[in-house]
Amino acid sequence: MELQLEQLIPIAAAIASFAVAAGFAAWVTKQKAGTKEMMDISDAVRIGAAAFLRREMKIIIPIAIGLAVVIGYFIGFSNGIAFAVGAALSAVAGLISLKITVKAAVRAANATGSGIGKTFALAFRGGATVGLAVPAMALLALALLFYIFPDPITIAGVGIGASLIALFIRIGGGIFTKAADMGADLVGKVEANIPEDDPRNPATIADNVGDNVGDAAGMGSDVYESYIVTILASILIGALIGLPQIMMYPILIGASGLIASIIGTATIGSKNVSDVMGPLNRSFYVSAAIAIGLNFAFTYMFVGTNSLAMALFGATVIGVILVPVIQRITDYYTNYKYRPVQEIQESAKWGYASLTLMGIIKGMQSTGPFMIALVAAIIISFSISAASAPDPSQALLYGIFGTSLTAMAMLSLAGIVLSIDAFGPIADNAGGIVEMTGMGEENRKVTDQIDAVGNTTKAVTKGFAIASAGLAALAMIQAFQYEAKAFLTHHAETTFSHLSPESFAKLSDYTLTNPAIIVGLLVGGLIPFIITGQLISGVSRAASKMVDEVRRQFKADPDILTGKSKPDYAKCVDIATIASLRELWKSAVIAISAPIVLGVLLGPTAVAGLLMGAVVTGIFLAYHLANTGGAWDNAKKLVEMQGHKGTDEHKVAVVGDIIGDPYKDTAGPALNTVIKLLNTVAIVFVSAFVAILVL
Amino acid sequence: MELQLEQLIPIAAAIASFAVAAGFAAWVTKQKAGTKEMMDISDAVRIGAAAFLRREMKIIIPIAIGLAVVIGYFIGFSNGIAFAVGAALSAVAGLISLKITVKAAVRAANATGSGIGKTFALAFRGGATVGLAVPAMALLALALLFYIFPDPITIAGVGIGASLIALFIRIGGGIFTKAADMGADLVGKVEANIPEDDPRNPATIADNVGDNVGDAAGMGSDVYESYIVTILASILIGALIGLPQIMMYPILIGASGLIASIIGTATIGSKNVSDVMGPLNRSFYVSAAIAIGLNFAFTYMFVGTNSLAMALFGATVIGVILVPVIQRITDYYTNYKYRPVQEIQESAKWGYASLTLMGIIKGMQSTGPFMIALVAAIIISFSISAASAPDPSQALLYGIFGTSLTAMAMLSLAGIVLSIDAFGPIADNAGGIVEMTGMGEENRKVTDQIDAVGNTTKAVTKGFAIASAGLAALAMIQAFQYEAKAFLTHHAETTFSHLSPESFAKLSDYTLTNPAIIVGLLVGGLIPFIITGQLISGVSRAASKMVDEVRRQFKADPDILTGKSKPDYAKCVDIATIASLRELWKSAVIAISAPIVLGVLLGPTAVAGLLMGAVVTGIFLAYHLANTGGAWDNAKKLVEMQGHKGTDEHKVAVVGDIIGDPYKDTAGPALNTVIKLLNTVAIVFVSAFVAILVL
Repeated sequence: MELQLEQLIPIAAAIASFAVAAGFAAWVTKQKAGTKEMMDISDAVRIGAAAFLRREMKIIIPIAIGLAVVIGYFIGFSNGIAFAVGAALSAVAGLISLKITVKAAVRAANATGSGIGKTFALAFRGGATVGLAVPAMALLALALLFYIFPDPITIAGVGIGASLIALFIRIGGGIFTKAADMGADLVGKVEANIPEDDPRNPATIADNVGDNVGDAAGMGSDVYESYIVTILASILIGALIGLPQIMMYPILIGASGLIASIIGTATIGSKNVSDVMGPLNRSFYVSAAIAIGLNFAFTYMFVGTNSLAMALFGATVIGVILVPVIQRITDYYTNYKYRPVQEIQESAKWGYASLTLMGIIKGMQSTGPFMIALVAAIIISFSISAASAPDPSQALLYGIFGTSLTAMAMLSLAGIVLSIDAFGPIADNAGGIVEMTGMGEENRKVTDQIDAVGNTTKAVTKGFAIASAGLAALAMIQAFQYEAKAFLTHHAETTFSHLSPESFAKLSDYTLTNPAIIVGLLVGGLIPFIITGQLISGVSRAASKMVDEVRRQFKADPDILTGKSKPDYAKCVDIATIASLRELWKSAVIAISAPIVLGVLLGPTAVAGLLMGAVVTGIFLAYHLANTGGAWDNAKKLVEMQGHKGTDEHKVAVVGDIIGDPYKDTAGPALNTVIKLLNTVAIVFVSAFVAILVL
Repeated sequence: MELQLEQLIPIAAAIASFAVAAGFAAWVTKQKAGTKEMMDISDAVRIGAAAFLRREMKIIIPIAIGLAVVIGYFIGFSNGIAFAVGAALSAVAGLISLKITVKAAVRAANATGSGIGKTFALAFRGGATVGLAVPAMALLALALLFYIFPDPITIAGVGIGASLIALFIRIGGGIFTKAADMGADLVGKVEANIPEDDPRNPATIADNVGDNVGDAAGMGSDVYESYIVTILASILIGALIGLPQIMMYPILIGASGLIASIIGTATIGSKNVSDVMGPLNRSFYVSAAIAIGLNFAFTYMFVGTNSLAMALFGATVIGVILVPVIQRITDYYTNYKYRPVQEIQESAKWGYASLTLMGIIKGMQSTGPFMIALVAAIIISFSISAASAPDPSQALLYGIFGTSLTAMAMLSLAGIVLSIDAFGPIADNAGGIVEMTGMGEENRKVTDQIDAVGNTTKAVTKGFAIASAGLAALAMIQAFQYEAKAFLTHHAETTFSHLSPESFAKLSDYTLTNPAIIVGLLVGGLIPFIITGQLISGVSRAASKMVDEVRRQFKADPDILTGKSKPDYAKCVDIATIASLRELWKSAVIAISAPIVLGVLLGPTAVAGLLMGAVVTGIFLAYHLANTGGAWDNAKKLVEMQGHKGTDEHKVAVVGDIIGDPYKDTAGPALNTVIKLLNTVAIVFVSAFVAILVL
């Protein structure tokens, strides 16, 4: 088979993206790593992160091999291969993320002496390596798989592969990072009265490892998963329309966003800057504008200038616009510059109960504008795409394809969005190194200034991740219904020939009168609540183990607190790793077994209900948790900025921050992965549900 | 028209229930009201409650008249009448509740001298007056309306009437009670250091009024609304089946439960008892057993002994069993005898953040068993009813009818459930009067003992109310879809004759592929989050106004704190009343306008999605909020029982209780009303959505 131009473009874009990422990585590596003391800390973080990954891989690899065999044998050979590819590339992306962020952090710390420009450039380029590599990996995987196996349903396993790794890195990492963070704070700050990131705290390295594992690698694997799932769903739906010129269109949109992201990251130089938010915003808007331009060009080249082409292009424009809209909404609810966080900060004066309630109120209220934006995007892109259908009977399919393209266009900007996100944890880690090596006030100021922006971008990227996970899941649910129907129709004359036409039709009855759908919606709606409860309690348990260990070390060797002996950092990393894996599997079992059990018991319609129910409660809960947590964090920062550190008000605000930690960094992000995992499991096992119906 | 036996039975049951309720009321009134001091307090509460009701009525009556005219003119005359009847009877039930609970409270306080038996009997019979009057009112209204207008859709307005009043009493009362409670506590306990229910606290009467308004009348109006909505939905669905023998069946189930409840309440005597939980449980199980027996008898008499009759009877048995199952689950998560509350109490030792997180975790986890019970009930009752359908094409309709009967059988026990619930606030108020008049330790112990059981029954009744609201709404959503389709079919040849068959079919496309359904689900799922945020912030605002007033009074007249002058109680009642009405309308506008706006913009399918989305997130959120709040409350009680009052642990536990107050008594219960209100609005305006489609 010869490569067509529309197959070549995404592959070329991915390769270009790897090249630029490699260039950034090389540039970062070339910079000075700093003193031996700094390298020691960096090495400890690197070794800790590697230990975490190694232990995870020990569990993931057997599961992955087992799953690959099961999928390959029961579902199909190509799906088994696709699964393996999806998982392996995601793991590689995670590995790259960890390696480069650790390297970048120590170099950024070292650069603090030469001012904010160099430090910022190091943090940004370290982040951009991750940001560009992740979507390039996803795009390459799908373009190649789709080239080899041109039927999209035969490669749906790639989604499960991505989900499996995301589950371990996103959820496992989320538990790890907060167990370490809360454990370090509870004994260090509260009991031993030593500052954050103090090298005497045995949990401090684990805390820094957690920033890399949970924040940088976790977000990367989350978005990688959304990316894979969305392309997959849009190709599945596009295949149903059956026009050859649109088969590759979703992948082309991905390529266009990736090229735009490469150019966007190149706009960030290393000159000295006073405000780092400006260049970041500029790089994003450059990328968005280029993406729109390229989308237009690709549409013109491959689809044409007819009304269909214009409708599809329109749907992608909506997706691109949705990114800054969601980011602005999230920013409004989590940034201390605006009323919501200010009101939370004011409520701290009234005491713990007021602060807690106010944070929850604002988080709940934030779901309103967020949802209106999503719903408006869905309605508009559906309507314009449906209107372009050649005849009314296909309007629905065209409309759904349009909404999946909106999701795809949003995710196509993952490159630049992730780059902007990933620099935050690097700056945070650099700050930790500056603190631990006692480099001084001035250097800390540089990292603090960058870290503050990093907190903002971290919060707004969560909004992006939740919105894109929601849209990805909605696209997947549509694909699931069509696939389930296709399987049934395929077997209508054979296995289902004994059924009356009425009973047969009922197997594909996705209406809200079908009790299987209602049961599915209720069970699906339950899952995010149960998993949230599970994960927050998991973090609490893990943190208390960490507390015990830190206390034990302080007691066993009193010289640790005087600074004469070095604490046993590795032990704390180990505890967080084991605890995160132990807590993780419960959520994993729920997310993987729920659609399978319900599908086997009540058939594919119940599964569709379950998927939808999980999205409905999942995105609201995730957005509420992320924003409430983010707002508490920044309310505390606002109290500190007003110079009220040490007052009662500050004590209250610190409690809000602690409550918010598992909200925003464990449970909220985990729900993204869960709602997608449910979908990938469902779509790969769709034939199994149908087969069971026959028994 | 002559009354048939099946029409006579419900009317007779309702009249018997009124008679017994009147008997209880007369007995309560006959008892000694106590000293002048006690009467003064009781009068203040009565006047306060009356002031609240009067002010509410001033707003409700014009709205009700306006709505009656609108509904009567646009939707149909009979619907206008039904609306007025539904609203008026609900208001009457609220009035009766308030009058009798105030009377019973002061008499129960007076009876504390003669031991726990008499006090308990007074509290219980006061509660039973409310418990028996509320469902009797609902049953009578529906039986008579349905006798006069035998087409159920023409009397659907009765549901809006019930919802309108429930909105004001349940949500308005919920804001009132917590504003008063938090306001009284924040200044009284924390600043002025005076105990709860101290007569020197200006907000203390408002607090007691709130117990009556929010807890007793609020729960009554909530269950009244579920009762009306469920009967309505099951009659609507039953009418579609078209068998004459099942038309009155849902009302007969109501009658059977009511008769059983009368007998159940009669088992409670006024002998001295050491444990009040025992007799309460006994009275419930007696009622449940009799209800099952009567359901069997009525089924045999009016439906027969065929497989349909047995299936319907089976569905009602499941409904009756569901009541204690839900109560036990709720009890497990909110009673200090079990692990969840004990774990929360233990977490209080770790500090504010741990306690808050642990409460939220347990509340979230409680949704799991709750949902499994609901889903199992739906699946079983659907399956057995669907299997009894004469031919497969009607299986769906029969199955849905069966699930609506399960909901109805559950609600048929409202009489006994409400009786057991309503004695709690009376005991609480009696305790307040004992405290305020300084009657002494021994008397307080009697009310405390009863109040403790009241807290348990209050928590478990919330579980009942949420489950029944959820089932009521699910039944209503089915009825809505059938009604919308019926309207469309009715106008198919006339107004829609210009549409192609395909476009016409799309107007009734309730499948999960329809983007209108998806948008509806997302918007509906949003509503409970937004309203929760709105109401909790409303309570905070109202409470801070109360705090200002209490502080103002203490400052203006220092003699209040020394006990020499009497505070201005009425002013505080007034503030809570105005604040509750001001905060209420926002939620009301959202709940009323959301289905109408979406229906006009996107048609009836989007509305069905909205209703379903609201149920999915609404019941989880409501149950989580109710149980988290209840568990925090009891964790605090547990700390106190262990004699740790005044310790740091206790301070932490008190904060949990304060956070939980608006959770369990404002937002949680309000969601019940909201999810039903959405449905009643939707079903009455269904013809309007369809008419708009024509334009």
